[in-house]
Amino acid sequence: MRPGNNGLFIPGPTNMPHTLRQAMDVPLEDHRSPTFPELPLSLFKDLKQVFKLDRGQVFIFPGSGTGGWEAAITNTLSPGDTVLESVFGQFSHLWVDLCQRHGLNVETIEVEWGEGAPVELYAERLAADKEHKIKAVLVCHNETATGVTSDVAGVRQAMDACDHPALLMVDGVSSIASIDFRMSEWGIDLAVSGSQKGFMLPAGLSIIGASEKALDASKEAKCAKCYFDFVDMINANKDGYFPYTPATTLLHGLRASIDLLFSEGLDKVFKRHHRIAEGVRTAVDAWGLSLCAKEPKWYSDTVSAICVPDGFDANHVLSMAYDRYNLSLGAGLSKVSGRVFRIGHLGWINELMVMQALAGSEMAMRDVGIEIEPGSGVGAAEEYYRQTAEPVTLQDAKAS
Amino acid sequence: MRPGNNGLFIPGPTNMPHTLRQAMDVPLEDHRSPTFPELPLSLFKDLKQVFKLDRGQVFIFPGSGTGGWEAAITNTLSPGDTVLESVFGQFSHLWVDLCQRHGLNVETIEVEWGEGAPVELYAERLAADKEHKIKAVLVCHNETATGVTSDVAGVRQAMDACDHPALLMVDGVSSIASIDFRMSEWGIDLAVSGSQKGFMLPAGLSIIGASEKALDASKEAKCAKCYFDFVDMINANKDGYFPYTPATTLLHGLRASIDLLFSEGLDKVFKRHHRIAEGVRTAVDAWGLSLCAKEPKWYSDTVSAICVPDGFDANHVLSMAYDRYNLSLGAGLSKVSGRVFRIGHLGWINELMVMQALAGSEMAMRDVGIEIEPGSGVGAAEEYYRQTAEPVTLQDAKAS
Amino acid sequence: MRPGNNGLFIPGPTNMPHTLRQAMDVPLEDHRSPTFPELPLSLFKDLKQVFKLDRGQVFIFPGSGTGGWEAAITNTLSPGDTVLESVFGQFSHLWVDLCQRHGLNVETIEVEWGEGAPVELYAERLAADKEHKIKAVLVCHNETATGVTSDVAGVRQAMDACDHPALLMVDGVSSIASIDFRMSEWGIDLAVSGSQKGFMLPAGLSIIGASEKALDASKEAKCAKCYFDFVDMINANKDGYFPYTPATTLLHGLRASIDLLFSEGLDKVFKRHHRIAEGVRTAVDAWGLSLCAKEPKWYSDTVSAICVPDGFDANHVLSMAYDRYNLSLGAGLSKVSGRVFRIGHLGWINELMVMQALAGSEMAMRDVGIEIEPGSGVGAAEEYYRQTAEPVTLQDAKAS
Amino acid sequence: MRPGNNGLFIPGPTNMPHTLRQAMDVPLEDHRSPTFPELPLSLFKDLKQVFKLDRGQVFIFPGSGTGGWEAAITNTLSPGDTVLESVFGQFSHLWVDLCQRHGLNVETIEVEWGEGAPVELYAERLAADKEHKIKAVLVCHNETATGVTSDVAGVRQAMDACDHPALLMVDGVSSIASIDFRMSEWGIDLAVSGSQKGFMLPAGLSIIGASEKALDASKEAKCAKCYFDFVDMINANKDGYFPYTPATTLLHGLRASIDLLFSEGLDKVFKRHHRIAEGVRTAVDAWGLSLCAKEPKWYSDTVSAICVPDGFDANHVLSMAYDRYNLSLGAGLSKVSGRVFRIGHLGWINELMVMQALAGSEMAMRDVGIEIEPGSGVGAAEEYYRQTAEPVTLQDAKAS
Repeated sequence: MRPGNNGLFIPGPTNMPHTLRQAMDVPLEDHRSPTFPELPLSLFKDLKQVFKLDRGQVFIFPGSGTGGWEAAITNTLSPGDTVLESVFGQFSHLWVDLCQRHGLNVETIEVEWGEGAPVELYAERLAADKEHKIKAVLVCHNETATGVTSDVAGVRQAMDACDHPALLMVDGVSSIASIDFRMSEWGIDLAVSGSQKGFMLPAGLSIIGASEKALDASKEAKCAKCYFDFVDMINANKDGYFPYTPATTLLHGLRASIDLLFSEGLDKVFKRHHRIAEGVRTAVDAWGLSLCAKEPKWYSDTVSAICVPDGFDANHVLSMAYDRYNLSLGAGLSKVSGRVFRIGHLGWINELMVMQALAGSEMAMRDVGIEIEPGSGVGAAEEYYRQTAEPVTLQDAKAS
Repeated sequence: MRPGNNGLFIPGPTNMPHTLRQAMDVPLEDHRSPTFPELPLSLFKDLKQVFKLDRGQVFIFPGSGTGGWEAAITNTLSPGDTVLESVFGQFSHLWVDLCQRHGLNVETIEVEWGEGAPVELYAERLAADKEHKIKAVLVCHNETATGVTSDVAGVRQAMDACDHPALLMVDGVSSIASIDFRMSEWGIDLAVSGSQKGFMLPAGLSIIGASEKALDASKEAKCAKCYFDFVDMINANKDGYFPYTPATTLLHGLRASIDLLFSEGLDKVFKRHHRIAEGVRTAVDAWGLSLCAKEPKWYSDTVSAICVPDGFDANHVLSMAYDRYNLSLGAGLSKVSGRVFRIGHLGWINELMVMQALAGSEMAMRDVGIEIEPGSGVGAAEEYYRQTAEPVTLQDAKAS
Repeated sequence: MRPGNNGLFIPGPTNMPHTLRQAMDVPLEDHRSPTFPELPLSLFKDLKQVFKLDRGQVFIFPGSGTGGWEAAITNTLSPGDTVLESVFGQFSHLWVDLCQRHGLNVETIEVEWGEGAPVELYAERLAADKEHKIKAVLVCHNETATGVTSDVAGVRQAMDACDHPALLMVDGVSSIASIDFRMSEWGIDLAVSGSQKGFMLPAGLSIIGASEKALDASKEAKCAKCYFDFVDMINANKDGYFPYTPATTLLHGLRASIDLLFSEGLDKVFKRHHRIAEGVRTAVDAWGLSLCAKEPKWYSDTVSAICVPDGFDANHVLSMAYDRYNLSLGAGLSKVSGRVFRIGHLGWINELMVMQALAGSEMAMRDVGIEIEPGSGVGAAEEYYRQTAEPVTLQDAKAS
Repeated sequence: MRPGNNGLFIPGPTNMPHTLRQAMDVPLEDHRSPTFPELPLSLFKDLKQVFKLDRGQVFIFPGSGTGGWEAAITNTLSPGDTVLESVFGQFSHLWVDLCQRHGLNVETIEVEWGEGAPVELYAERLAADKEHKIKAVLVCHNETATGVTSDVAGVRQAMDACDHPALLMVDGVSSIASIDFRMSEWGIDLAVSGSQKGFMLPAGLSIIGASEKALDASKEAKCAKCYFDFVDMINANKDGYFPYTPATTLLHGLRASIDLLFSEGLDKVFKRHHRIAEGVRTAVDAWGLSLCAKEPKWYSDTVSAICVPDGFDANHVLSMAYDRYNLSLGAGLSKVSGRVFRIGHLGWINELMVMQALAGSEMAMRDVGIEIEPGSGVGAAEEYYRQTAEPVTLQDAKAS
């Protein structure tokens, strides 16, 4: 065991607040007891608030984000159905693959990695689909592989512009509860999340929001499913139970997570993520490096993918960071492997925590020969954070 | 919050050992770090020993037992395939339902609840299936609803007797790691378990053993799947990784669980479960009541379903136990609802723990008017346990 | 590691509620931070309510009950001072010893073990002490060794009857927070408790209530002390700090403990302890055995010392219970070693938990040859608990 | 609750490793059970190795460092005895006070804060004490208030040079288990430590090493004590028990702590502390500031007290750090209040953890107007740590 804590700065799982860890550290219990329903019923209600879902239902499955994608697809579509999705990173790519394995016909829009969902191209394709063959439009809200956040509301506008009746499905795994997300306002029909990102919990829960339209679609959908079946869930959930043994400890964690999110306030959570992310971007700038995300409008507030200069291997930076300084950064995946390393900055994080990642990145980059100025990124971030900190005056400080 | 601990005697989740609780109470971690694989690789190896699987592979999915059934089915069968299953309780019934939803043609053998898998009827059906239409034979090893354990080895013999090439799939959710289970010796191709029974963990993991024959079958199987796909698992698992974020905290718990099982010794674990169960059955006898399980050969060592006398509602016993004495017993499900209540006696349990369930059952039964002698069951169990306890002599006792 | 949980029925430490365990499972913190005082200040305030102390102060030291005795003595008395104490068990005996080591002159009233504080003898001695040489009157409220609770109010009346100005010091280690205790009403000047009994926490805190009169006395007291000095505590505590590093994790546990006590309600806590104890005494009766406590008025609601029949060694019962059934009972101490075994029934306990102790005692007694009827004690306790349970009707039960 | 973790950089309590936290998170237990002694006996044995004590005994009391001082003094000295101590900080000052309250005659050597134990002055005083009135020589090994480590071996040499028979007592609270400490080699008779510094646990245990000479002295010592009496401990400890209820959960934590220290290796623990400290000192240098410790030979490897420039109030730095950035630094105490702030860098710490303290100090200093270059200290520390890191080559890094 290496001395000192591991610095965990991957884009999920994240640093877990102690209150959440504790909330899950409970004796096991009877999930069919008469008092059990109180917990799930409160979660179903409050998750709608987190998703900003007015009507519809939120489902909780033992699973991962991938399971959430599968639940969304199989409950609302039938083999042979056409879906439209843009691909601009590893996770949008994998969703396409999942759709194909379930017998869907996927129309993809290939986009350069570093850009986000191409609203205009979506608009074109949708407008061209006069016969409404496209049954679902898929968008990855926050592409974790490239640190790119997309304009989901824009895609909805594109759909509305041509009155397209397809379902709008959004991968919000690494955005929900960290980045502004408005399920009903943006007209999202299915939104997929997991426990291990903005909810700051261990992996193990797929959390899926479904609009009324999605629930209606589930009555006709012919994709095979049983484990992820909405219908069984709807029947059991209405009384606060589950069709099979739920992951009760994670449910307790989710309760504590939502309580924590609400106690800070969702808007403040989003602002905090933005501010932490801006500090990281200020540091990247001070290093003279650039992000994988091509334009500021794509910048993700939960993860930054940082390009190493030509001639260097980003994986070497990662190895140095991990082996020498016990710092876990995110690797570049697939197309950008070796070209970027990623700093995850979501969840239970504050200014000084992220300094570990910045200082460690500086050290690891210098170890592999990248010529950045030691302390330059940290210093720039310090100044950004100082200038944007809550104004505590000396007077307050003295009084405290 | 009611004073004192809840007495948890449902047939899973079970009482969790403190070492397992602690093992899961860890910081989150990077599931792609270079040191991460050590944990899963050790689990894959040791789970084969728990399943007594010589060749083949054990898979760990974030999921439940139901997810395990789905994984077993969808990875090895194709829509339209015929499977043979006997139904004698709620869980064998639900597995049939799952098969049907995935497009399989299920031949069922209906058996009276309280009996187990009818080896002779399996033999007849298999012998009659000259064309080998039956692609898989499904058996529920331990039917949790009725407290009945079946003769899996007998079913295998029936298959072998007519050289039937079908896959043998076994639901071992409430038997594996508690009751003798020999995957290779019994020629089982797919064995399904979950974390919340014999492994004494929270629900959240599907654990599935697959023989080489099952792995071969997975290459041809056409049932749609992605989340539960063996192929992705095989590719990632071989290096100790997973195709998507695994439930790392449960993996740590599973490590501690297996360590605990091995430190006691699987054979001793089985003997302990048998002895605890025998004590419960001795108490039932002393009460003048009978088990749902019709014959001793069916008696389950992990759960006892106890029939209340005619004219009484077993659910009233449960309510009294829970509301007055904070005791969680298992309800009768479906066909036997109201006719039986169940005492789960699996996992981390010893003589005195089960006394809570027996004393509480006596109190609750008397509360609803069932005329049993107070203390009769407990006293009978005491004598059974005394006579079968490890022989500690006074000399030893004094020395300690 | 032996399978299943240890049955912990010693008179402290007790079974710890999970909420308390969790409350202590926190990161370490700066005990000089500006926000730290909130915790101790809330404790100081609420502990007065637990002690039922109107005016005065409650102190929290890292220590044990013995440390509490030392703090009470050394802060209010001077070497050579005379104190009066009755001795009727191991703990009242040890307090005398502690006083002597600090140079006090101890007048003891020896009482047969099994009886409590002899109010009449106190009255005599105090009345005879015309010159008020006696500076403090010491009473053990609940003698843990014999399971005897004394009449502290009676001793106060004896003091008042002769207008005796001595301080009244009470060992409430195994009574406070479990048995009715009224510091101000009973005119107690110093009351000593610890974290590991009624507070249901691990050992590690001495908790001492001091009346205003005791605080006044502390200004003149000449017994040497520094670690346990009230003055340093008073100075630091007023702002919510401590003179040296406090045991912060136990303070968090204490917060949770008081919250739990208040949420149940102190009166209900006392009633619950009485009812649980009555059930144990009903069982002892059914066994045909007797308690060490001579008369019902002495019966303790936190611990029962049970006499084994002549010719048997109570320690053998203990050894059998521990070695064969993983049950921890309390040994007879000193004078009653071998003659009694003790069942602790305080803290976080309910009917079915105590059944473990009763069933295990029956088994262990029979193992050593004591001829009690198996199940007799348990059965008698069952009936007592049933008849005194909260009246849940079938109707309620069905509705829940 | 403020988002993100608190940065804890006070000189104890320290960051607690998760394995230690878990080790204490156990059910309560019977401290008189036949199996209990295994734990304390292993601790007594292994603590001698931590203290590097060949013969003699290590005691564990529920208490704090102050309690340890009191135990050392009261068990080996008598009222009126003379002791010699140098005072150069708040903690050496408080020990003098404690001695005086126990009736000792304290000869003090006042030293400027920022210097350490003056070996020459000790030598003079001891040489002058021809009649050996001085019964004990007290030295604070690591003065936590000023970040100064003293030469204990030098004091021993001064004693030996004049054949002085006094006991040598050392306050090792903030040095033992973090900084090289050799009880037998340096001829230390009493060494005092606590659980919350190098042992990385919560406060709550006083840990005291006593040489055979100290144990002999305890037979004659007349200072009043009972709670802290070595004799009761010796009698009970020899069989692995305690004279009163021990703080069992902390004992489990101590077991895990020693296991962790041994698994890293004490020498590596000391080297790690030195390296981390050197990085901090490199940063202080880069800021253009100076330490309270006057000379490199006094530099402490567990805590650095950093002087703010004239005209600034160090407490403002602290307030800013805490209020704005959730960073807990140590305040200047007593004489150096307002002149220094302290960074504790002991326990479970690595390079990147300390970066939080350095970056936060930079931000807080700039917030109050101290003109240091943002990132300058962090950058300097980065380079120091890089150059002194274990040589992981790219080849290793790639392979891992």
